[in-house]
Amino acid sequence: MKAYKGFLIDLDGTMYRGTEPIPEAIDFVKRIEQMGYPYLFVTNNSTKTPREAAGILQNMGVPATSEHIFTTSMAAAGVIKDLKLNAKVLMVGENGLKQSLLDEGHELVDVDPDYVVMGLDREITYEKLAKAALAVRSGAAFIATNGDRALPTEKGLMPGAGSLISVITTSTGVKPTFIGKPEPIMIEQALEKIGVKKEEALMIGDNYDTDILAGINADVDTLMVLTGVSKEEHLKDVDDKPTYVLPSLSEWQFN
Amino acid sequence: MKAYKGFLIDLDGTMYRGTEPIPEAIDFVKRIEQMGYPYLFVTNNSTKTPREAAGILQNMGVPATSEHIFTTSMAAAGVIKDLKLNAKVLMVGENGLKQSLLDEGHELVDVDPDYVVMGLDREITYEKLAKAALAVRSGAAFIATNGDRALPTEKGLMPGAGSLISVITTSTGVKPTFIGKPEPIMIEQALEKIGVKKEEALMIGDNYDTDILAGINADVDTLMVLTGVSKEEHLKDVDDKPTYVLPSLSEWQFN
Repeated sequence: MKAYKGFLIDLDGTMYRGTEPIPEAIDFVKRIEQMGYPYLFVTNNSTKTPREAAGILQNMGVPATSEHIFTTSMAAAGVIKDLKLNAKVLMVGENGLKQSLLDEGHELVDVDPDYVVMGLDREITYEKLAKAALAVRSGAAFIATNGDRALPTEKGLMPGAGSLISVITTSTGVKPTFIGKPEPIMIEQALEKIGVKKEEALMIGDNYDTDILAGINADVDTLMVLTGVSKEEHLKDVDDKPTYVLPSLSEWQFN
Repeated sequence: MKAYKGFLIDLDGTMYRGTEPIPEAIDFVKRIEQMGYPYLFVTNNSTKTPREAAGILQNMGVPATSEHIFTTSMAAAGVIKDLKLNAKVLMVGENGLKQSLLDEGHELVDVDPDYVVMGLDREITYEKLAKAALAVRSGAAFIATNGDRALPTEKGLMPGAGSLISVITTSTGVKPTFIGKPEPIMIEQALEKIGVKKEEALMIGDNYDTDILAGINADVDTLMVLTGVSKEEHLKDVDDKPTYVLPSLSEWQFN
């Protein structure tokens, strides 16, 4: 196995399953931390702040601070900042998205936004959807944190961000720019954040359709772990295979 | 113009625009009422009860009782009744849909439904969407009152029933059975209700994509009036033209 110099690691299905930690993954992160390699947790979850996400990992014994977290909300806020400083943003989402937008200096507005940014919002209302649809029709750029169709919960698969976003797409005919995995943009931003080159980085995750495709789309080597969503048989029908497939992160051999 | 023996008439854009009556249409309905022809107002609006819809028409001087109203909610409740008596239905919608389901003897439930029926719900919540998605995933049949993507209002085009329904379709991968126009089923049910044969009926409406296509799909002659959504130039690119196109209903000549 190649000697990588930086690691991008998914959270749900890779570090934990719901509230249950995955010990092999925690040991892996401890090893790369001891070896001094940079790492960043890259998640499509737009609802949590970096502090909240780091807190969950810390409680499981993972060496992680807010600095080790990169959410799709942070990526979306950064993408907008690159396009326009102090942008006027109409946001439909939860606390993680709100904080990320404010952290990057954007102004949250209700009417006449430059951007409509939408993520998972479990307090969605018709009024929020209507305002977003009207703003997109009026020409605001439309950005979506991620396109995940379903959200795994204890109760079953609930509607994900991508499902709520489809209301605006269906109503207006305008497709959003997606930021989260499998888009390459989030991976590129993450590598910039940890200062590691594409060819020296490894993207690790359990979900072929998001984590692994994001790595492939960004031209980064990938490791698919069989601790979450995707199974080995899912790979039969795909053209682009992960660079590595392992039952768990305890099988990873450092060189 | 052919001597028709029964008339199906759209409401918004045909009888009125928002709160503004269309006098030529009101005169037309008075004439067919005096001539003794049966008529039924056929609307994709799932939110109003027949009594509410008739009240609006009465206030504009249209000869209309609840018996003259056929909404997509009534049609959906009827379709389910034909498939299963006293069905258990999980409903996402407003008062019109709720009343129609109860009127047909169905039981409104929160879990384990036989059918998930969804229409426009301007008090939508994530919880309602989640329950509907879980039920559809568990195998409940999925029925949608109508697929209208946008809802014209004073404030602009708001998300219509079809946009909200896309949350469930995107999340579960299951497409609903649509009941409202342009599906033919609603027209067929309407004709049965007034006891008129296909070849003796005329469907009148302002919207090519819903009213006129519904008539065409049901093999019923159509009259497109230019008092609402569709303009004459819209017809350039369509294969199936309306049987008649008139600026308003005052140009209709009875034989």
